[in-house]
Amino acid sequence: STASAFGLKEGSLIKHQGFIDGKWVDAKDGSKILVTNPATTEELGHVPEMGLAETKEAIEAASKAFQTWKKTTAKASHFSTSTLSCLRDKHEDDLARIITLENGKPLAEAKGECIYSASFLEWYAEEAVRAYGEVVPSAVSSLRNVVIKQPVGVVSILTPWNFPSAMITRKLGAALAAGCTAVVKPPPETPFSALALVELANRAGVPPGVINVVTTQTNVGEVGKEMCTNHTVHKISFTGSTPVAKLLYGYASGTMKKVSIEAGGNSPFIVFDDADIDAAVEGAIACKFRGSGQTCVCANRIYVQSSIYAEFASRLAEKVAAFKVGNGIEQGITHGPLIHERAIEKVEKHISDAISRGAQLVHGGARIPGSGSFFAPTILADVPHDALINNEETFGPVASLTKFETEEEVLKLANDVPVGLAGYFYSRDVGRVWRVAEALEVGMVGTNTGIISQAVIPFGGVKESGLGREGAHGIEEYMNTKFIAFGL
Amino acid sequence: STASAFGLKEGSLIKHQGFIDGKWVDAKDGSKILVTNPATTEELGHVPEMGLAETKEAIEAASKAFQTWKKTTAKASHFSTSTLSCLRDKHEDDLARIITLENGKPLAEAKGECIYSASFLEWYAEEAVRAYGEVVPSAVSSLRNVVIKQPVGVVSILTPWNFPSAMITRKLGAALAAGCTAVVKPPPETPFSALALVELANRAGVPPGVINVVTTQTNVGEVGKEMCTNHTVHKISFTGSTPVAKLLYGYASGTMKKVSIEAGGNSPFIVFDDADIDAAVEGAIACKFRGSGQTCVCANRIYVQSSIYAEFASRLAEKVAAFKVGNGIEQGITHGPLIHERAIEKVEKHISDAISRGAQLVHGGARIPGSGSFFAPTILADVPHDALINNEETFGPVASLTKFETEEEVLKLANDVPVGLAGYFYSRDVGRVWRVAEALEVGMVGTNTGIISQAVIPFGGVKESGLGREGAHGIEEYMNTKFIAFGL
Amino acid sequence: STASAFGLKEGSLIKHQGFIDGKWVDAKDGSKILVTNPATTEELGHVPEMGLAETKEAIEAASKAFQTWKKTTAKASHFSTSTLSCLRDKHEDDLARIITLENGKPLAEAKGECIYSASFLEWYAEEAVRAYGEVVPSAVSSLRNVVIKQPVGVVSILTPWNFPSAMITRKLGAALAAGCTAVVKPPPETPFSALALVELANRAGVPPGVINVVTTQTNVGEVGKEMCTNHTVHKISFTGSTPVAKLLYGYASGTMKKVSIEAGGNSPFIVFDDADIDAAVEGAIACKFRGSGQTCVCANRIYVQSSIYAEFASRLAEKVAAFKVGNGIEQGITHGPLIHERAIEKVEKHISDAISRGAQLVHGGARIPGSGSFFAPTILADVPHDALINNEETFGPVASLTKFETEEEVLKLANDVPVGLAGYFYSRDVGRVWRVAEALEVGMVGTNTGIISQAVIPFGGVKESGLGREGAHGIEEYMNTKFIAFGL
Amino acid sequence: STASAFGLKEGSLIKHQGFIDGKWVDAKDGSKILVTNPATTEELGHVPEMGLAETKEAIEAASKAFQTWKKTTAKASHFSTSTLSCLRDKHEDDLARIITLENGKPLAEAKGECIYSASFLEWYAEEAVRAYGEVVPSAVSSLRNVVIKQPVGVVSILTPWNFPSAMITRKLGAALAAGCTAVVKPPPETPFSALALVELANRAGVPPGVINVVTTQTNVGEVGKEMCTNHTVHKISFTGSTPVAKLLYGYASGTMKKVSIEAGGNSPFIVFDDADIDAAVEGAIACKFRGSGQTCVCANRIYVQSSIYAEFASRLAEKVAAFKVGNGIEQGITHGPLIHERAIEKVEKHISDAISRGAQLVHGGARIPGSGSFFAPTILADVPHDALINNEETFGPVASLTKFETEEEVLKLANDVPVGLAGYFYSRDVGRVWRVAEALEVGMVGTNTGIISQAVIPFGGVKESGLGREGAHGIEEYMNTKFIAFGL
Repeated sequence: STASAFGLKEGSLIKHQGFIDGKWVDAKDGSKILVTNPATTEELGHVPEMGLAETKEAIEAASKAFQTWKKTTAKASHFSTSTLSCLRDKHEDDLARIITLENGKPLAEAKGECIYSASFLEWYAEEAVRAYGEVVPSAVSSLRNVVIKQPVGVVSILTPWNFPSAMITRKLGAALAAGCTAVVKPPPETPFSALALVELANRAGVPPGVINVVTTQTNVGEVGKEMCTNHTVHKISFTGSTPVAKLLYGYASGTMKKVSIEAGGNSPFIVFDDADIDAAVEGAIACKFRGSGQTCVCANRIYVQSSIYAEFASRLAEKVAAFKVGNGIEQGITHGPLIHERAIEKVEKHISDAISRGAQLVHGGARIPGSGSFFAPTILADVPHDALINNEETFGPVASLTKFETEEEVLKLANDVPVGLAGYFYSRDVGRVWRVAEALEVGMVGTNTGIISQAVIPFGGVKESGLGREGAHGIEEYMNTKFIAFGL
Repeated sequence: STASAFGLKEGSLIKHQGFIDGKWVDAKDGSKILVTNPATTEELGHVPEMGLAETKEAIEAASKAFQTWKKTTAKASHFSTSTLSCLRDKHEDDLARIITLENGKPLAEAKGECIYSASFLEWYAEEAVRAYGEVVPSAVSSLRNVVIKQPVGVVSILTPWNFPSAMITRKLGAALAAGCTAVVKPPPETPFSALALVELANRAGVPPGVINVVTTQTNVGEVGKEMCTNHTVHKISFTGSTPVAKLLYGYASGTMKKVSIEAGGNSPFIVFDDADIDAAVEGAIACKFRGSGQTCVCANRIYVQSSIYAEFASRLAEKVAAFKVGNGIEQGITHGPLIHERAIEKVEKHISDAISRGAQLVHGGARIPGSGSFFAPTILADVPHDALINNEETFGPVASLTKFETEEEVLKLANDVPVGLAGYFYSRDVGRVWRVAEALEVGMVGTNTGIISQAVIPFGGVKESGLGREGAHGIEEYMNTKFIAFGL
Repeated sequence: STASAFGLKEGSLIKHQGFIDGKWVDAKDGSKILVTNPATTEELGHVPEMGLAETKEAIEAASKAFQTWKKTTAKASHFSTSTLSCLRDKHEDDLARIITLENGKPLAEAKGECIYSASFLEWYAEEAVRAYGEVVPSAVSSLRNVVIKQPVGVVSILTPWNFPSAMITRKLGAALAAGCTAVVKPPPETPFSALALVELANRAGVPPGVINVVTTQTNVGEVGKEMCTNHTVHKISFTGSTPVAKLLYGYASGTMKKVSIEAGGNSPFIVFDDADIDAAVEGAIACKFRGSGQTCVCANRIYVQSSIYAEFASRLAEKVAAFKVGNGIEQGITHGPLIHERAIEKVEKHISDAISRGAQLVHGGARIPGSGSFFAPTILADVPHDALINNEETFGPVASLTKFETEEEVLKLANDVPVGLAGYFYSRDVGRVWRVAEALEVGMVGTNTGIISQAVIPFGGVKESGLGREGAHGIEEYMNTKFIAFGL
Repeated sequence: STASAFGLKEGSLIKHQGFIDGKWVDAKDGSKILVTNPATTEELGHVPEMGLAETKEAIEAASKAFQTWKKTTAKASHFSTSTLSCLRDKHEDDLARIITLENGKPLAEAKGECIYSASFLEWYAEEAVRAYGEVVPSAVSSLRNVVIKQPVGVVSILTPWNFPSAMITRKLGAALAAGCTAVVKPPPETPFSALALVELANRAGVPPGVINVVTTQTNVGEVGKEMCTNHTVHKISFTGSTPVAKLLYGYASGTMKKVSIEAGGNSPFIVFDDADIDAAVEGAIACKFRGSGQTCVCANRIYVQSSIYAEFASRLAEKVAAFKVGNGIEQGITHGPLIHERAIEKVEKHISDAISRGAQLVHGGARIPGSGSFFAPTILADVPHDALINNEETFGPVASLTKFETEEEVLKLANDVPVGLAGYFYSRDVGRVWRVAEALEVGMVGTNTGIISQAVIPFGGVKESGLGREGAHGIEEYMNTKFIAFGL
């Protein structure tokens, strides 16, 4: 069976069906999506190619379940989400393995994602019992002003393949804890992590209809549209590309749904001449090449101040040369494949464009022959500001270096894009650290660090990088504020 | 001069031009909008009919001003907004008079609006210095997690005629206090209140470009679209009808702008048999007939439990019979005209529809002859659930009564609409009060009161009634959350 | 061995030593305290009679351990406290048994205490990672205002016998989660619950010195004084009687320690004529007789409005007559013994005083013959305001009924005491509920309920009933607020 | 008249009586306190020498007034406090003049205090309407958990002479805003600022009994004791010396009063070798010599890293040499007298002690001959750790310099005192800034700044420097948290 392809301790975590109203189901017309391992191009298994009808059923099931789930106490939501979190811990190894096999990232990184994924369940479980309302002093002596929080209702959740597990718990954990029910559409590249999670939720006793999963690839247009326009849905949470984000946001407007969006970034990574260069190199490696450059908070543009530019570039190249690229399931592999052929094509385009505009190839620069969608870790130097790579997300293992002279100049460059998710810089001076952190037009800033993600911090962007924040107080995105005036 | 038409103590508060980059300006092509008094149909004056070009200039001015205004300290924003608030107090009488003349509401009610309008400026001034960020305990010992709030940038503000002053301060006060700059589009029916306010802001020393006003009527389509699609604008705040709200929300999606919307409601007003009937009648009068029924939180559907239905209806009719409808500027007038002919037509349609479906006319029911758009306060009894008036906002002086038997039944009726702004009910039982307040699908609930609005409470709706909350912590809607990781 | 006297599944939970710097220790001079079962007067075992020297060592150990424990991240505190919470769950049955044997309360009630006790560990674990600081907008453009929370240091914890387990976790859980280290002095009547908890903390990996336990009886004077005056201790948390509270508070002043006190109450329980009488009777039973009246939030004075006074009294008597008083370890027993002879004497004094002033004995009134300190559940009617029982805590199973006429009158009676911990009343009218809840001079009000305790709510009193709040945001009582101005 | 001694625009601000229950009153026995100008020893006027009887009357008046004042809405408290703030602004010049004449600080500094003083009134007025309660999610489906804030009752306020105005508004503003009534005991050295403030409160319409002032000198022992033991008082707020603080704290324990204390500090001021030396010198000047060293947050111990020690010392001496010491009312004077002879004696003792232990006198060192209690600004170098000046507050114009080698060493020195109010240091390295700020055992840290005070920040100390925080959320110190369980 295909389940055995995963080599799990517990093969029953692999599910080949969608999940609606507490039941595992096929597509009505029996269509299927083939899922392959990007490191080997081997077949991992099939999941249903669902469409409009299944989506409507899933929404209907969620709506029905909401009528009782919304009445669970915060303590009960706390319990369900906690139980799921504990079950998750128990299957850490299998879940990490699934991630590596369908996404390609090295096993160590997949385990890191598992911890990150679990941290959202734990966090939101704890937030459930802290969805405090407020008593507001009244200007009118005969009224008492009370503000409470209530779940918004049915939530549509659409997630990407680069974090097959964590992007789901980040949204679904919040929805569950808030008292919402959900329809989840995982990406066709990595559905098995999502389905395994739902299997665990099922075992944890989450009632039928509270979580529903619709898998789709060819029908994604009509499924996505239904998820964002159906009048029973009151909230959409999406992580993915900016163009799709805008499309779904537009759909949402017709029925005034609440929307949380985490779309693309184009993160600047700045190294000032008062930085600790070793730390900056280490940070750049983590920030640029994690997931082979396929995260939305990866550094996309590396700006280095002129006096240390050469040194930084050479130290970076040294480190990159030591990478071990290969099948992430194997011991010692530091970097895996890209997700698919289209990803490689974009990388190639960005590199050739940069070179045609005068950039120099310092390291790598080409795909790695053989099966699997591998691309050599690449460093480009002297990349001009107008290169494609400085203006849109590469989502691949290409470090693009640009030299700058002054703080003012580099801030102008860094902010000259329509998006603003993350930004990074290295400097030891406390004044500059505050000043530059405040001046970067992004939602999240890493100073003297290349890694910023934690469940406890508000994750999200400004400008065209998104709306809303996840983690931190993110449960509020799944709740309505209700004001009650008590007339005495 | 037309200014004298207003009979103000200080005529210079009346402005006949738009305001861009600190200068009073005409439309480029000299076009004008005629503004009339709805109580008399007399001419009040003209304001410019501006268009796309003026809107772009206004946005450009706001964008330029933002570069310095965003750097003002919270204390400085506090000062500007406070000063404006104080200046406003000084001209209370004149400002109330302007409201009555252009909107029609009785002078006492206009004064009430003035106090309400001023309360937002005071509140937001105080919020400016309380835009607290957070320090989040870090799971990583080498990082410190700091969260700050920053102004979003240029804000587009679009407001309605039913609160010519308060709807502007509710948005503009927050924007100013947050450190944003703004382009305001007041309604063509009531521009003078808006322009007077800007004149006062000008006197208070608010720098050029921080507030800009574009007046428009015929060109509203292109002006609104530009305000919601221009890539320099980062936030839209709209109060108005649901259809326009959806249109603007759709525009916003193309550039992922943040949006606050307060759209239409269809408020249920429920009287249970354990209510204090006198109090309920008084509440219904205030809630239904304030502004001649032209507020978004007016009761639109009055449900009365069967055992007290007859008594409630007769006491209500008695009170309504005592209304003095007329020109609001005159002493003793309790209720003014509707805003214009279209408003009367909708009221007539709702009444005839209800009667055709079996409702009974208890009081009023027809427009009042003579000049001015007056309509007699009306009571309909036994209005069936499928009547138009039970399914869309009337925005007029029509109390529609429907009998019910059980709590469960009336909750079903109350929630069976796609919108959810406010809801009201009367009951003395503490258990029912909490239970029904929680069950109503609205953003705001008045229990044993017909009036809920205060600057300090979170104002806004659920479902298709809007997004976001004003007043209360509403300054946050004009700020971005930025996370800064301090690497040590 | 005496351990077998407990009949536990795991006898090793019974410890007969104190715990200092990670080691189980005897008193230096070998002295011991005998602990007996109040239901049988049988010997349960001995614990050390420690004194000044041991106390100083414990404080010194806590101080040393603080130097490293304070540097644990919030996440690590979260983990330790969570692990302890999980271990606790595992031994629920044994822990409940220990409570019943040393305190006397029925096993079902002991299990309830266990759940309550565990809920504090869970709650504070979750609070550890939420000890948010603040970023305060600066009035000075060259400064950034950051506020953080830090653990206060070594904490002295002194707890009572009526909740042998929950009173410890309520304090110790907060201290641990905050990053503090602690010296705990459990009561001589019920030391085994405390010691079992520490054994579990030890197993959970809490480092040596973080928790220390000093058991004492004869030397309590010098031990208590040292715990409250030693300059290394920075915080005192005490639950117990008001006279001892004042003494310790006075000690604390000499070195300006932070203090949390939960001292005695004298709770009024009011039944208005618009109450649901059945519910009120049920509430009074729970509120008055839980723990045989030996909780600080027990109703001490029951005021019933005249028109329902007779009915309430008779229904109450009916319920009380059905109690099964006996050894709490036996099946079906609803109420156990008092803690010791002194407790019985106080109850007898209160009853005879009331009767001598004209009160009538409706039910019970005398001790139950045989071994064990049992007293019959008692109801007194028509107790005059000046009776002792209306002016100080009885801490025993005596329901004292007083008739009243008006709301104003009963509020005056209810507030006419120097203490103010809890207060209760029954009424269905929403206006009265808010009005009376606001007017009662107490820290906690139960309306239409006789049970108010939850880990998530702020527990504590006003006037002479205490200082500070536990549960809820109570972790802050164990933290200092530090302001940091960052000069740029 | 003595009022003319002040040379005010409006002489009626000078009051020579205490204020009880809305009336200006003398001491019952006619006794008086003589107040003199410390810069000239000239007589400024008399105020009553009140005692126990007057104190009891004042408390009684406050208690009576509380019965109605506690029922004012938050909005009304906001209004009263705002009005007082506005009136205060109007008399800025006169109020500053009073401060200089009775305290001695230069007029520019007195004006600074006036702004600071007013900022508390404004801040707390705004806090009044933000005394939010909380709705806590209930674990029990039949309960709703509501938390509200209520004023504690009568407050005793005792203030020092070094900020004759600001220390009063910092406490009284909070008390008023919270809904408390107060008895204020200003210091005998500077009563006129306090009395002028009360006169303005009176004009602002604050009702009789809400604010009461008792002036005393000889009877301070019995007055202070009554203020801290009278059972009608529920809160004590004190700023002053640590010994008095401990005494009053001890009094408070007998009736379990809430206490806020801001006692003495002994602030370290550290200059690391990576500091901006010019900025550090400037910071040291401001921090050490403001108010001639007579503030509780003044630097008391200046530690300079060895490599920059000599340079720092010489630049500091240069700046100090440029001071203009004299009568603060005169133009150009930068530093005024000490408050009285006892203050000079302590300074002399600290200097001679340090020199006797090997310190070197770099500048100043002696009192300035002539009338008035002037002392020359002094710099001591190489002051050993065991010198008196390193172990207790000097409260005078003496900069004590000590050399250090390592960060670890200086942190040990800095923390080796029983108090912990403020601490300062200069360093540009962002890692060190966070690290040292966290390690200093104080309530407030200034990094790269010598001035930290703002109304918006939490002001207060740790260890023996005090309890509670003022400014910021300080209104909570004057409020009780009440939990209300609503049974449905």
